[in-house]
Amino acid sequence: MESRSIRLAVIPGDGIGTEVVTEGLKVLQAVGPKFDITEYDLGADRYARTGEVLPDSVLQELRGYDAILLGAVGDPRKVPPGLLERDLLLRIRFDFDHYVNLRPVKLLPGVATPLADTPPENIDIVVVREGTESLYAGTGGAMRKGTPHEVATQESINTAYGVERVVRYAFAKAQSRPRKKLTLVHKTNVLTFAGDLWQRTFDRVAEEYPEVTTDYVHIDAATMFFVNQPERFDVIVTDNLFGDIITDLGAAVAGGIGLAASGNINPEGAAPSMFEPVHGSAPDIAGQSKADPTATILSVAMLLDHVGLTAEAARVEQAVADDIVERLSHAAARTTREIGDDIAARVSGGA
Amino acid sequence: MESRSIRLAVIPGDGIGTEVVTEGLKVLQAVGPKFDITEYDLGADRYARTGEVLPDSVLQELRGYDAILLGAVGDPRKVPPGLLERDLLLRIRFDFDHYVNLRPVKLLPGVATPLADTPPENIDIVVVREGTESLYAGTGGAMRKGTPHEVATQESINTAYGVERVVRYAFAKAQSRPRKKLTLVHKTNVLTFAGDLWQRTFDRVAEEYPEVTTDYVHIDAATMFFVNQPERFDVIVTDNLFGDIITDLGAAVAGGIGLAASGNINPEGAAPSMFEPVHGSAPDIAGQSKADPTATILSVAMLLDHVGLTAEAARVEQAVADDIVERLSHAAARTTREIGDDIAARVSGGA
Ligand SMILES: CC(C)[C@H](C(=O)O)[C@@H](O)C(=O)O
Ligand SMILES: CC(C)[C@H](C(=O)O)[C@@H](O)C(=O)O
Repeated sequence: MESRSIRLAVIPGDGIGTEVVTEGLKVLQAVGPKFDITEYDLGADRYARTGEVLPDSVLQELRGYDAILLGAVGDPRKVPPGLLERDLLLRIRFDFDHYVNLRPVKLLPGVATPLADTPPENIDIVVVREGTESLYAGTGGAMRKGTPHEVATQESINTAYGVERVVRYAFAKAQSRPRKKLTLVHKTNVLTFAGDLWQRTFDRVAEEYPEVTTDYVHIDAATMFFVNQPERFDVIVTDNLFGDIITDLGAAVAGGIGLAASGNINPEGAAPSMFEPVHGSAPDIAGQSKADPTATILSVAMLLDHVGLTAEAARVEQAVADDIVERLSHAAARTTREIGDDIAARVSGGA
Repeated sequence: MESRSIRLAVIPGDGIGTEVVTEGLKVLQAVGPKFDITEYDLGADRYARTGEVLPDSVLQELRGYDAILLGAVGDPRKVPPGLLERDLLLRIRFDFDHYVNLRPVKLLPGVATPLADTPPENIDIVVVREGTESLYAGTGGAMRKGTPHEVATQESINTAYGVERVVRYAFAKAQSRPRKKLTLVHKTNVLTFAGDLWQRTFDRVAEEYPEVTTDYVHIDAATMFFVNQPERFDVIVTDNLFGDIITDLGAAVAGGIGLAASGNINPEGAAPSMFEPVHGSAPDIAGQSKADPTATILSVAMLLDHVGLTAEAARVEQAVADDIVERLSHAAARTTREIGDDIAARVSGGA
C-alpha cells in the first residue's frame, strides 16, 4: 500500500497512561509509515490546573484526525472520581458514536493464565461490546437526596437502531472467523424490555448469516463459562455494561490487564475511532516504570488495522507474540521502556 | 435448644430441582428436629397444566411458614423463558421482602477450583447481595416495539431505605468474621446516582463499625480480582444485578454451581426466608441422576442456621465437608441419590 500520512491525535492522560503511550508511539514509529502525531494535554493535571476537562473546541479538533490513541485518565488526588471517565472518556465515545467497543480476549502462547489446565487455543474470544447505550446513557437522578427517603434511579436506554448496528457488526465479525460462532450475552430473564429487543434483533439478523452458529447465555452464567469453559465462546455481542464487566474478566483470564487492548470504533468512519488499553491510570504504580505497555502496543496494532495498514498491524502483533514467548527467558522483570524498546526493535526488524 | 416443630414449605420446582430437593429433605430428616413439611407443586408442569404460576392464595399460604426450601424452576419446553423466574422466584423474593440475598463463596478443601495455585483459604467470601431493588424492580418499557424506531428502557430504582438496611446487615456480618473486612462493589463511575447513594450510605454506616476495614471496587475490576486475587475479599456488599453476576462467578471459582448455596433472607422475620441452590433447573441433565445435591444440602444448612438450629447447621456443613474430602477416593461419580445418602448418613452419625 502507498505510504500516506495518517493524522493521529494522542491523549497520554494520567499516571501510567503517559508511560505506556510513549512506548506505543515508539512502536508506531518503528512500523514505518509516516504518522502525523499531535499530543493533547488532557486529564487530571489539566483539570487541576485549569478546571477544564474537554473543551468543546478540543473535541471539535479531535474530530479532524484519522484516529486517536489514548493512554488512561484519572487521578483521585486531583480530580473527583468518575469525572474524567465521564466527561472525557465516555464523552468522546458518545460524541464520536463509538458504537462498537472491540475487545479481543486472547491467551497468547507463553502467557500465564490464572486458569488451571487451559491451553492458549481455548481462550480466543472477540467481545463486541455496544458502546453508546444502555446504562451508560447517563440518565437518571436522585430525589430527596441525603434524606432517609432518597430515591436514586438510573435508566438503561436501548434503541432498535443502536442494537441492530452493533449486532450486524458482530455477525460480520463472526462470519469472518474460522469458527463462525456468535453468542449473545444479556440478562433477558430480568431485563425483559431491553433483553427482548436484543434477542429479537439478534434472531432477525441471524437469518442473514446462515453459516454463523448462534447461542444465548445470561451474563451471570457467562462469567462462569469464562473461567470453566472459555472455549465455549468465539465472538460475543453484548450490551455496554455487561461488556464492561465481561471484558475485565476476560483480561484477567487472558493473562491480565497489562495485555488487554481495545478499540472504540465508529465503523463508518463518520468520526475518528479511539484505541486504548483496557487498564486505567493506576496511580499506585505510576512513575515506577512498572507498567506493561503491551496492552497499549496491541491497541496500536488495532489502530493500524483500523486505518487499513493490516500488514503493519500483523507485524506489531507478531512482535508482541514473539516478545511474550521470550519473556520466560528474562531473568528480571523489564521496565516499561525496556519492553517498548524490545518490541519496537522486533518491529523494525532489528531483533 | 428445645425441639419444636418447624413449619417448612418446599417448592421442588422443575428439572433437577425435584431431584436435589429430595436429597436436601433427606438430610433435613437426618438432622433430627421435627420439621412439618408441606410440598407445593409450582413450576413448569403446573403452568403447563393449569396456566397458573403462583396464585395469590398460595403466596398468602406460604407466608405462614417458618421457612421455604426451593429447588429450581423453569423448563423452556413448557413455559416461556423468564416467566417463572419473574412471576414465581422474583415475586416471592419481592413480596417477602428478601432484601438480603446471602451467598457464601467458599472453596472447601478437596474441591477442585478452575483457578491455578489457589489454596482453599484464599477463597472464603460472603456476598451480601441486595435482593429487592435496582434493575430487578422490573420497571421500564418499550415504545414503537418491533419497528426500527423501538426504544426499550429498564429502570434501576434504589432507595436510601433499601440500601441502608442491606449495608447495615453486611457491616454486622463483616464485624462477626475474623478478618472484619467489607468491600462495596458497584459501578459508581458510571451509575453516578445509584452509586453515589450506595457510597454515601456505606461511608456513613462505616463510622459505626470502626473495627471493620472497608474498601470499594468497581464491578468490572471485582470480576478480575475474583480470579486473580480472591483473597482480597472477605464480605462483599453489592446491588442486586452485580450480586447476581459476581455470585455465579464466585460459584465457578469455588468449585462449580453444584456446590453454591443461597438464602433469600428477611432478617426481621416479617415473612419466611427462602433457601435455594444458586443453580437452575438444568433441563439438559434432568432425570439422569447427575445433579449434585450438595448446593441444596448447603442451602438446608443455611436454613437451619436461620431458624436458630445452629448446631444442626454446623453438623450438616461438616458432613458436606467430610463428604467432599472423600470424593477424591470415589472411583466412579456418584448419583444424586448416592451423594444425598452419604451426606445424610454422616449427619445421622452413621458414617
Ligand atoms: C473508566 C470506565 C468509565 C470505563 C467503562 O466503564 O467503560 C472502563 O471501565 C472501560 O471498560 O473502558
Ligand atoms: C433466575 C434469575 C431470575 C435469578 C436472578 O437473576 O436473581 C438467578 O440468576 C439467581 O441468581 O438466583
